[in-house]
Amino acid sequence: MSSERLIYLPLGGAGEIGMNAYVYGYGKPGKERLIVVDLGVAFPDMDGSPGVDLILPDIAWLKERRDQIEAVFITHAHEDHIGAVAHTYDMLRAPIYARRFTANIAHRKMSEHGHPEDAVSVVGAYPEQIKAGPFSISFLPISHSIPESSAMVIDTPAGRVIHSGDFKIDTTPGVGEAYDADLWAEVCKDGVKALVCDSTNVFSPAPGRSEATVGPEIEKLVSSAEGMVVATTFASNVARVKTLAVAGDKAGRSIVLLGRAMKRMVEAALETGVMKDFPNVISPEEARAVPRENLMLLVTGSQGERRAASAQLARGKYQGIEMREGDMFLFSSKTIPGNERGVIRIINQFSEKGVDVVDDSSGLYHVSGHANRPDLEVLHDVVKPQVLIPMHGEHRHLREHAKLADAKGIKGVLAVNGMMIDLSGNEPKVAEYIETGRTYLDGSVQIGALDGVVRDRIRMALNGHVTVTVIMDTDDEPLGDPWVDMMGLPETGRSHAPLVDVLEEDLRQWLGRSKAATLRDDTKLHDGLKRVVRQSAQDEIGKKPEVTIVVSRLS
Amino acid sequence: MSSERLIYLPLGGAGEIGMNAYVYGYGKPGKERLIVVDLGVAFPDMDGSPGVDLILPDIAWLKERRDQIEAVFITHAHEDHIGAVAHTYDMLRAPIYARRFTANIAHRKMSEHGHPEDAVSVVGAYPEQIKAGPFSISFLPISHSIPESSAMVIDTPAGRVIHSGDFKIDTTPGVGEAYDADLWAEVCKDGVKALVCDSTNVFSPAPGRSEATVGPEIEKLVSSAEGMVVATTFASNVARVKTLAVAGDKAGRSIVLLGRAMKRMVEAALETGVMKDFPNVISPEEARAVPRENLMLLVTGSQGERRAASAQLARGKYQGIEMREGDMFLFSSKTIPGNERGVIRIINQFSEKGVDVVDDSSGLYHVSGHANRPDLEVLHDVVKPQVLIPMHGEHRHLREHAKLADAKGIKGVLAVNGMMIDLSGNEPKVAEYIETGRTYLDGSVQIGALDGVVRDRIRMALNGHVTVTVIMDTDDEPLGDPWVDMMGLPETGRSHAPLVDVLEEDLRQWLGRSKAATLRDDTKLHDGLKRVVRQSAQDEIGKKPEVTIVVSRLS
Repeated sequence: MSSERLIYLPLGGAGEIGMNAYVYGYGKPGKERLIVVDLGVAFPDMDGSPGVDLILPDIAWLKERRDQIEAVFITHAHEDHIGAVAHTYDMLRAPIYARRFTANIAHRKMSEHGHPEDAVSVVGAYPEQIKAGPFSISFLPISHSIPESSAMVIDTPAGRVIHSGDFKIDTTPGVGEAYDADLWAEVCKDGVKALVCDSTNVFSPAPGRSEATVGPEIEKLVSSAEGMVVATTFASNVARVKTLAVAGDKAGRSIVLLGRAMKRMVEAALETGVMKDFPNVISPEEARAVPRENLMLLVTGSQGERRAASAQLARGKYQGIEMREGDMFLFSSKTIPGNERGVIRIINQFSEKGVDVVDDSSGLYHVSGHANRPDLEVLHDVVKPQVLIPMHGEHRHLREHAKLADAKGIKGVLAVNGMMIDLSGNEPKVAEYIETGRTYLDGSVQIGALDGVVRDRIRMALNGHVTVTVIMDTDDEPLGDPWVDMMGLPETGRSHAPLVDVLEEDLRQWLGRSKAATLRDDTKLHDGLKRVVRQSAQDEIGKKPEVTIVVSRLS
Repeated sequence: MSSERLIYLPLGGAGEIGMNAYVYGYGKPGKERLIVVDLGVAFPDMDGSPGVDLILPDIAWLKERRDQIEAVFITHAHEDHIGAVAHTYDMLRAPIYARRFTANIAHRKMSEHGHPEDAVSVVGAYPEQIKAGPFSISFLPISHSIPESSAMVIDTPAGRVIHSGDFKIDTTPGVGEAYDADLWAEVCKDGVKALVCDSTNVFSPAPGRSEATVGPEIEKLVSSAEGMVVATTFASNVARVKTLAVAGDKAGRSIVLLGRAMKRMVEAALETGVMKDFPNVISPEEARAVPRENLMLLVTGSQGERRAASAQLARGKYQGIEMREGDMFLFSSKTIPGNERGVIRIINQFSEKGVDVVDDSSGLYHVSGHANRPDLEVLHDVVKPQVLIPMHGEHRHLREHAKLADAKGIKGVLAVNGMMIDLSGNEPKVAEYIETGRTYLDGSVQIGALDGVVRDRIRMALNGHVTVTVIMDTDDEPLGDPWVDMMGLPETGRSHAPLVDVLEEDLRQWLGRSKAATLRDDTKLHDGLKRVVRQSAQDEIGKKPEVTIVVSRLS
């Protein structure tokens, strides 16, 4: 029996939907050769991460083991799988492999960050194989809501592992490859040690619908529309973008693409040949000369993002185009939980303009890109793994998926971020717990989620901020009166006097009462002044602000 | 033809779901005698109103016309209808009328604020009438998700107006009054000038289901549970709370109420006689001696509120009770848009404890309290108004409801907050636009939503905050070096030197370069220092912070 082991370690994506980053290793404990599958991002929100630009997985563990990393593999070009590739490249410097379309997107990201494009190599589909230390890896096509999504077939001395990537079971996906049951059966026929599997839709009980079902409905809708039609979907859902464009084209409308991502994705799909043709597109400038009933706009911003084309059209003009009464806006998308407010905001703005909004509540104009519960079982049944490790889900999804596997007689393993699983023996076991977390890209700086920076911002948002300035003379006596500046606080409170005046007076009195020992001691002085501000504000306005104390001692 | 007119003016609730406040007036233009229907609140969120405690309608218009106000009527005891009653009492000082259960809740609010309870009078149901100036008003029972919800029958010299309040068409509501079609037909038989009508569920195409349908499903679920069962719903949904308690009781479980609102609502319902009986309740202390499989907890926090009982149980112990593997948590509620993140957070926390969470995705354990589209039509058909004015909705709901009315041959009027409608003539028309808005209750202070206070807080949350202190000597020269304090910003950036040091050095250099004319001029000095901080931070960390400049001049 070898002392080498096969490990699985999620650093992101197992405990949340987003920032996917999974590590596989093989070798002697602590000396494993490593590969990384996906390096994605998650998106910040005002509740938990105000001011943050992107959330990356904390890859400190990988960085410390840079010499052990053989390669990085990207399953597909969604931001939660590819988004951190360029941000982490300096730390890892490992070769990156992806299929043609995914690599096209990765190349763009690398060059935006000034990294060499050739760090990302293009790989063909299964049976083409990449050797990476003890691993042999191939990209096994599977259908999803973006072209060339692939599962990873990871061959190791301890057996074959299948990492599903994001997928659905779709035999008519429009653009991109169909799910090929025979191919999957062939790949899995000699036994699979572990299936590491997408869990997103484990709570959706009905079989998923094919991308092909939305085309006819969208065509019906667009052909019956009278004004301008504007539709939004994820730009990376190239099949959907094409379906929308074709529907517009058939209805005699000229197609306009609005939003950078929309143009980039269509371009990438045509460049790489994953999409063979696309209706003729005109520019926003050309569109101004076209009657509105002959226009169909495809725009970014299906999640109500404030800066995207959809939100700008909802607020007013965008690139010279304005929506009006009688126009139609179609969400060919679903709202990701947490984005409801932004989406509802723009729906109401359109309503104020008299624009008719059609969303997915009918279920006709959108299908999910992830396998529903019965479709997960289709994959379980074809792969027949010894072990199923749910990934790509919050804790509730992982737990439910593990239960589903157990119920089918497959050993389900609930592994969250940081839990290193040893897959070598007959029974998978937890080998180690690794410290993991989130890294915030904040402006141009990467900071730890627990550094306290964002916590302080949230506190200022909740409580407002007060600056107190005191000058102490050379005898350690206050020189003049303390000075208060406020931000984010009401001007007056209970007493109806200006809050600044009340605080300054209370501080002045406290300083007057304080003994020399306090006045000489910076810590005591800071603490005392802070306490006065917070208590005095609590009395006046019912709130304890964040406080910065600046004591300047003349010397 | 009289020169008097009948007006309708929404100050809140027409353009959002929340903070309902509707004004009716009759008299000569500008001299109308006024009544107010509902004074509710809305709830803040981190995106738009961080740190705010409650959102109230801006009632400046009413305050200026205090002498014209005859009375305030509260349709039911939901916070979005009753929540501002005590907060606005000092400004209006008008008599308040409500039915027994609603008044019970209002009395509690008034006494918490130190206002006289007898400002709120109890009124019986239709045909009992209150005379208020030119108006005669009665409370017409209608079913909703709280006891004694009522429509207002408002008789005026210009005809009868029906203000629906919140409602559903439910003939078996459990606790509270059933929808009585005959009574409604009787009330409306002589013609109704206008129906001002709830629009919440206008986008729900299927007929609504009765409260009675959830009981059997909940009983089935609870009787099959093996561990402790904990269920949450809105405490004010007394019928549901009772259904849950009865299900627990039937399954041989002792009932525990957790959360202040839960106890208060059950108490109010029993005190006022709207609920005749309720299963025996034990205290959390007593519960500790009961085997967990014999316990059923009814808890507050169906929307994932951080401080409510549900969230505390998700995090750990609450009042000595802790959930464990094998227990069940039931959401007998739906998640209000915008609250998804909080609800999902606690579901995942329960998942980590091994607690099985049952939510409303099956549709079995919750029904809405609002009339769906076909039920709205039931009311349209019984009331047969000349004019329909949608209320209690965002713009999209109001617009859709007005279109629905128009399609049925009823004149639909889309009136949003601040739009005063003259209902006197044969055709309703906009009489005036009133400035309206939101008032924030922030700690103990009421501030205007546009005062800039909350905007500054949001900016600090997004950008962080820097304080710069400079002392100028009596010759208007800097005394020592400028001093920087930061909050909510990373410690280092591009140069890897401490950000504070970089900013201080850049400020020092700028001060050294500045001419006497700048150094003498407070405005120039402030602007210059601020610009340096923002540019320097942008270079270092890719972010422009909010800045407070404190210049102290020795004299």
